[in-house]
Order: sequence, then C-alpha cells, then structure tokens
Amino acid sequence: MSPDSSPFITPDSLLAHWQGHRRLTRRVIVAFPEDKLFTFSVGGMRPFGVLALEMVMMAVPMLRGAVSGDWNASGDRAPRPKQELLSLWDESTDELNALWRQVPPKRFLETLTAFGQYTGALHDLILYVIDNEIHHRGQGYVYMRALGIEPPPFYDRS
Amino acid sequence: MSPDSSPFITPDSLLAHWQGHRRLTRRVIVAFPEDKLFTFSVGGMRPFGVLALEMVMMAVPMLRGAVSGDWNASGDRAPRPKQELLSLWDESTDELNALWRQVPPKRFLETLTAFGQYTGALHDLILYVIDNEIHHRGQGYVYMRALGIEPPPFYDRS
Repeated sequence: MSPDSSPFITPDSLLAHWQGHRRLTRRVIVAFPEDKLFTFSVGGMRPFGVLALEMVMMAVPMLRGAVSGDWNASGDRAPRPKQELLSLWDESTDELNALWRQVPPKRFLETLTAFGQYTGALHDLILYVIDNEIHHRGQGYVYMRALGIEPPPFYDRS
Repeated sequence: MSPDSSPFITPDSLLAHWQGHRRLTRRVIVAFPEDKLFTFSVGGMRPFGVLALEMVMMAVPMLRGAVSGDWNASGDRAPRPKQELLSLWDESTDELNALWRQVPPKRFLETLTAFGQYTGALHDLILYVIDNEIHHRGQGYVYMRALGIEPPPFYDRS
C-alpha cells in the first residue's frame, strides 16, 4: 500500500470515533436543565437545544445524501421537551450506524456536492458535521458553567 | 483493497484538515482583545489565552512522541503578549508539517501510550488533540460574543 492510499483512519474506526462524540453530546443534553434548553444563551448566541437540533439535522441527512443522492433535508428547530430531543438523538444513532454500512468505502475519498451547495471530499463533509458538533457542544459547556453546572468530562466517550 | 483497510481519510488529507482548523484558531487568537486574552472568562472557566497555550503544548509534543518516542512535554502557560503566542503558534505549524512527514503511515493505526498515560490508536490520539482545539475554540467563540465581538466564521478554513 503506498503512503498516498494508506489510511490515517478507517471508516469503521471513524464511525466509532463519531459515536463516541455523540454519546458525550447526549450526556450534555441530559445534564442541561430542561427549562434552559431552549431559552438560555450567552452573548446572544443560539440556545443549546437549537444547536442540538442542528446536529440532528446535519448528521443523518449528510449520510443519507452520500448513500442515496437524496439531499433533501427539512428541519424543525422549534423548542420541544428534552425527552423528544433525546428520542431524535437515539434514532439518529441507529440510522447513522445503518447508513454507514451502505457507504461504498471508496466514496469517502470522492468529491460530492452536499445539499446542493457544499462541495468537498466526503470525508471532509463528514468531518465538518462532527466538528460542528464538537464546536457547538463546547459552546454548551460554557452555557452550563455559566449556569453553575459542571459539564460531563470531555475525555469520556464511553 | 478490502473495506477494512481502505481509508476514510489519508494522512495527507488529515494534515490539511488539521491545518485548516489551526488557521481558524489563529484568526480567533488575532481577533481576541489582547487585554482580555489571559483575564476574561465565563463561568469560572480558563481564559482563552491559557486554552490556546494548551493547544500549542499538545500538538507538536504528540507528533514528536509518535515519531521519536520522546514523550517529554513541558508547558509554561503563563500569560504573555499576543504576538508571542502567535509566534509559538506559527512555529508549531511548521513543526507539525515537518513531523507529519516523518510518521510512518502504518503508525497511525498502531496503539501507542502517549505521555506515559494515554493509550490508544495514534489516529485517535491525534483526533483528540484536534477535537480539544475545536472544543476550546468554541469556548473562545462564546467569550468573544460575551465581549460583544463577532468571531471569525466557523466554516472558513482558508
């Protein structure tokens, strides 16, 4: 295998890495006070519940598009009970696992245009979704600290 | 190439992805008010300058260890002028590029113990460093918004 085609990471390991992040984000949703989920923010930014819904609306639609070419995505970011958000989260977890197995391995290296407007290698498009989750979860950590609540440890992905 | 050994992303592309994040983080350091860099925070968290120094103290030492087995890392997180922090940042950029070329491609898949205590596949150890940067930079975005300053756009990695 030439250095050019050797993996930094394989698809299976990347999915495991992502789902580890998603378990941590789920714990942040669980720990976030329900009455602050769609109301509290710092510096005029979006509330954490809206950010969590954005994560849901990016993850499965990105993979579904990569598998099927169907880039339709609709998103209702209206406030809802925490339990409903967690149910959406858990459905996404299962759908991601199922869709991941349907991505032809070579496709991760191919260039696609996602949602009719974002062109890049599929691996970069997927990393964007993961990075966006990490970025906004970090924002959620500050909201929790500002509320006097200790967030779940960043290093724990179990 | 079997699906098991096919890349999700290659080492070259992952380095490009990381350096894109590092360019964005550099822009956040540049945009952060110098008099707040080591003093301002929200919810009792660490100031952004301290977080940026942590990023510097994780990146090159992780790669140096992966290349050489030398896991010594010392870190002075004392406040310093923004220009000094940016100089450290730019030195790290060059060192990362140079060290990356010295990592045998297969090593990214091997299990190492970093800094005598963190055991995992090298790709996961490196992703942890990148994810930590994204996490704390997201924290920095909230600090900037709380200070009434618009942070650089998240999607721009140029």
